Amino acid sequence: MSEAVEGTALQLRSLVKRSGELEVSLAEVPIPEPGPGEVLVRLEAAPVNPSDLGLLFSAADMTKAVASGTPERPVVTAPIPEGAMKSLAPRLDASMPVGNEGAGVVVAAGASPAAQALLGKTVAVLGGAMYSQYRALPAEQCLLLPAGATPAEGASCFVNPLTALGMVETMRREGHGALVHTAAASNLGQMLNRICLADGVKLVNIVRKPEQAALLRSIGANWVCDASAPNFMHELTEALVATGATLAFDAIGGGKLAGQILSCMEAALNRNAREYSRYGSTTHKQVYLYGGLDTGPTEFSRSFGMAWGMGGWLLFPFLQKVGPARAQELKARVAAELKTTFASHYSQRLSLAEALQLENIAVYNRRATGEKVLIEPHRG
Amino acid sequence: MSEAVEGTALQLRSLVKRSGELEVSLAEVPIPEPGPGEVLVRLEAAPVNPSDLGLLFSAADMTKAVASGTPERPVVTAPIPEGAMKSLAPRLDASMPVGNEGAGVVVAAGASPAAQALLGKTVAVLGGAMYSQYRALPAEQCLLLPAGATPAEGASCFVNPLTALGMVETMRREGHGALVHTAAASNLGQMLNRICLADGVKLVNIVRKPEQAALLRSIGANWVCDASAPNFMHELTEALVATGATLAFDAIGGGKLAGQILSCMEAALNRNAREYSRYGSTTHKQVYLYGGLDTGPTEFSRSFGMAWGMGGWLLFPFLQKVGPARAQELKARVAAELKTTFASHYSQRLSLAEALQLENIAVYNRRATGEKVLIEPHRG
Repeated sequence: MSEAVEGTALQLRSLVKRSGELEVSLAEVPIPEPGPGEVLVRLEAAPVNPSDLGLLFSAADMTKAVASGTPERPVVTAPIPEGAMKSLAPRLDASMPVGNEGAGVVVAAGASPAAQALLGKTVAVLGGAMYSQYRALPAEQCLLLPAGATPAEGASCFVNPLTALGMVETMRREGHGALVHTAAASNLGQMLNRICLADGVKLVNIVRKPEQAALLRSIGANWVCDASAPNFMHELTEALVATGATLAFDAIGGGKLAGQILSCMEAALNRNAREYSRYGSTTHKQVYLYGGLDTGPTEFSRSFGMAWGMGGWLLFPFLQKVGPARAQELKARVAAELKTTFASHYSQRLSLAEALQLENIAVYNRRATGEKVLIEPHRG
Repeated sequence: MSEAVEGTALQLRSLVKRSGELEVSLAEVPIPEPGPGEVLVRLEAAPVNPSDLGLLFSAADMTKAVASGTPERPVVTAPIPEGAMKSLAPRLDASMPVGNEGAGVVVAAGASPAAQALLGKTVAVLGGAMYSQYRALPAEQCLLLPAGATPAEGASCFVNPLTALGMVETMRREGHGALVHTAAASNLGQMLNRICLADGVKLVNIVRKPEQAALLRSIGANWVCDASAPNFMHELTEALVATGATLAFDAIGGGKLAGQILSCMEAALNRNAREYSRYGSTTHKQVYLYGGLDTGPTEFSRSFGMAWGMGGWLLFPFLQKVGPARAQELKARVAAELKTTFASHYSQRLSLAEALQLENIAVYNRRATGEKVLIEPHRG
């Protein structure tokens, strides 16, 4: 079962230099030796999620990126606007590995029974530095994939599936009865739609293009609103009246959409109001901004009364809040429904070197719905 | 003790007509008879709070207001922009009394011991329709003022004092260690400053003019930041480092201030960060928008990580949340410190008719710090 696992291997690195330059390159790093409770995973597949791009390219202006190095060891450099450097102080001149999650085969294991039990198995892993050929990790951080599942099928086991499950869980914990989701045709959005259909949760899907609306309807979505349509606000209000949704998860972040959702929620709540309240509906309306597909400023007119909230939402604090037992239940569901509810689709599969080619970066850095990249660290 | 309390009396009314016109006038209404548990209060003083203006003038464009009627029965009309009419549907063609709070003398009382005990006493009252000459209210809704306190001194017993106390209480309940307040030179801001000095709570005061900064410093404020100063963001960050404040109450609402506060909180939290976190500080930063002195849109760049929230904050839901026992404790403190901590200052005292003169409206509708009006409903 064991193979030669010593020497060095490739790892993608992102470096913000004090001079105001980003440098992304491939480093040769020693293959780690697993500790007693650890396993060594030969990583076969790791997705590029929007949440990886912030660490990977930082605040650099990638339209000005320049390629250098060799085909096998490409180097990408790009300038970082001066205004953004201040917030990057803690990472200056520190070469950082990238990649939140991935999947691969356990090729070596420490002495502990839990580690030994995983030897030869295909596992999904979470924990950073996944754009690497090898990673040593605690055995309990591995999610054993069902028999027959490939690393590519298990590469996106954590970020999107747990985020989608976290939205439904948050809805229940915070006393809301239905959900709104934006950028709803994304991999994550399609997962959420499947979860809500299975669990009987009413979901209002907001998309930005007619073809995305059609896609969601084709997979059974009941409420789909196209933000590019002229009657969007009306359609959204009708969907909110029908579903009673007072909680939204927004992947866009910038622009007016979050505020528009709150305004439509308020209009839906007031549809049958009998009494004028100068402070608006007393029902709490909440939008969580969990992504920033639009990195521009967020803007809203406060036309939704006083019972409202906006805020950031992140997977890791959520998992801490629900506790390890519940987190484990959610992970077990992901493994059990890996090829159905939680199936991911990729538009491109790239080697580590290919991931640093400017033409590929230009595609996956667009964060466009339907364009998701899988890095295969051992592909030549 | 009793006096003639029958017949009719004046009451200020605000009416939004379906035609898109606001009409504010004085109505003659029957003096109510107190029920068994009620008292009849002869209202002597009622402040115009920013929170009253929304009901009083609704969304009308008061720069286009027109006066008619007689000096004793003035009528003010003003157009309402078409876009605002939709949200006013529940109040169309309903003539509404105005005035959240006030103070006066109990001139008649129902049979209950609680009501009888208040006969002849000076009380502060909360509950709407206070721009009236008489109001019947449940005895338990009255706050008995200390001996020697005048109605003018007790007129602002509830909205500002309980809001200021509510901010400190919210800070403690939500686990923050210090506070930020905007429009901090206002009556409410000065109260909050006195409360925080007395209670040992660190308070960062944000004002919009140098003279307001000087005023606050003259009454003992330790941290004052002038948003009109070129180095405002730097000064605010320094004050946040010094105080550790992660909760702000913002009276402005519109513009960029709320977002700037979150950004400076984040910068303060990261000042001594040893490790780069791509998601920013994990400490939750919160801004509550409790007012809308700037009615324009709210705008922010999301430069403060993911652990943040914005939301509406209102006094009445807060009082419900803390429950009647705690609310009563807060009210007792207001009565006990009426002439010190909770003293209010008025720039003008107006009769009901004077309150409807266009030149007076132009002044108090500016919501400018330092310009607060007291209506004296029985003044000729």
